[in-house]
Amino acid sequence: MQRYFLQDMLDKQCIVFEDEHYHHIVRVMRMKVGDRVYVVLPDESTVVVELSEITESCVRTKWIEDVLISSEMPIQVTVALGIPKGDKLDWVVQKTTELGAFAIQPFESDWSVVKWDFKKKEKKKERLQKIAREAAEQSHRSHVPIVHDVLSFQKLLHTFSQYTHVLVAYEESAKTQEKQQFRQIISTLNPKDKVLIIFGSEGGLSDSEIKQLVDKQAILCGLGPRIMRAETAPMYVLAACSYELELR
Amino acid sequence: MQRYFLQDMLDKQCIVFEDEHYHHIVRVMRMKVGDRVYVVLPDESTVVVELSEITESCVRTKWIEDVLISSEMPIQVTVALGIPKGDKLDWVVQKTTELGAFAIQPFESDWSVVKWDFKKKEKKKERLQKIAREAAEQSHRSHVPIVHDVLSFQKLLHTFSQYTHVLVAYEESAKTQEKQQFRQIISTLNPKDKVLIIFGSEGGLSDSEIKQLVDKQAILCGLGPRIMRAETAPMYVLAACSYELELR
Repeated sequence: MQRYFLQDMLDKQCIVFEDEHYHHIVRVMRMKVGDRVYVVLPDESTVVVELSEITESCVRTKWIEDVLISSEMPIQVTVALGIPKGDKLDWVVQKTTELGAFAIQPFESDWSVVKWDFKKKEKKKERLQKIAREAAEQSHRSHVPIVHDVLSFQKLLHTFSQYTHVLVAYEESAKTQEKQQFRQIISTLNPKDKVLIIFGSEGGLSDSEIKQLVDKQAILCGLGPRIMRAETAPMYVLAACSYELELR
Repeated sequence: MQRYFLQDMLDKQCIVFEDEHYHHIVRVMRMKVGDRVYVVLPDESTVVVELSEITESCVRTKWIEDVLISSEMPIQVTVALGIPKGDKLDWVVQKTTELGAFAIQPFESDWSVVKWDFKKKEKKKERLQKIAREAAEQSHRSHVPIVHDVLSFQKLLHTFSQYTHVLVAYEESAKTQEKQQFRQIISTLNPKDKVLIIFGSEGGLSDSEIKQLVDKQAILCGLGPRIMRAETAPMYVLAACSYELELR
């Protein structure tokens, strides 16, 4: 069943689709009166509605039921990623949304090959947010991950107080046979914990960055014996969180 | 450190690089005498060698040490995937290799949108195998996942006897609140177990296919409350296997 996110809070008994949603329902999906869709309200509650009337400019609906089962991860995982090359950030936003990320926080790191074009930042952010929304619709989520503005590494450090746990995916930790840190932390998380997990870009994190992270009490974690690309490691972490917290 | 897979078994004391590897070492990486690389031998053992002489057509090396730490998953996971659209199979091969898959088995399913072009199959298989090899090099593996020939669904069923466990990633299982099956199985696997995990293409698996899988004792598993795209679910499974078996 198709799923639509509403920007404005409407009475769930009489939700009306216009503009973009109207176009999608009537022109793209060619739905008819009697068809049902999920609607996610701005408070992230989800309802099922049935199309009751289709006019030239809007679709009226009637409320059928509230959806009480949540598809959201019990913890909030924010993925902080050194800006990767090419369109990889698009891809990371899509995949981490499917896998349950709460937010995505790109940052500029010493070894990012790419420098962020701040002139185009509004346009880029808009596109990334659209990718997140579409992936959230597809994966039946009620929360659309927030794609934050790109931060400098120093500013990233200043966000740590917003989180209950700050972890760093660090290859060198895996090499030194440290393999239990990540699991020990993930397996003891509580619902509503806010976890920030930091990943380097393709070039990894510099020694200076690692030192500053450790000074700020971030915990270095190995993610197993294989070396993953920058864009793959966040998926490993989110899948592991889901396995640990949602499948038990 | 760069990693090269050798097709032929050579005396590890005097490994010589020619042709493609020579080109990569000398022209692409511009290495010098004294530089070191990993070499994975056909028996999947890994050694460190040092470049001792670079001629016009070959690089001679001397053995430095054996690498005794394995980067391979303790179990063998074969990912069976209904042929996906576009270049997604390339992508699945790359990512599942990074995440530790033992083999990839594409198959034709009722709802595959794409039909496999058997005329081009050798060329395609060659390309996929190259992607697997390159990803294995990058992720520091000693085993290059085997990309098997595409099978019909019926032939896939006949491979089940080769595995100790056959699982099916099934969205409907997640919807019915079945959430522990996958974890219960993964957490009780033993080293060397051979696990086949079957994923539908974008269209999922048909009711008839599910029935045949269940008749053959395959176990249906939910992978949490969110709906993942066809290409994302294999990554979830491999990351979960690694988390369960490699980080404890």
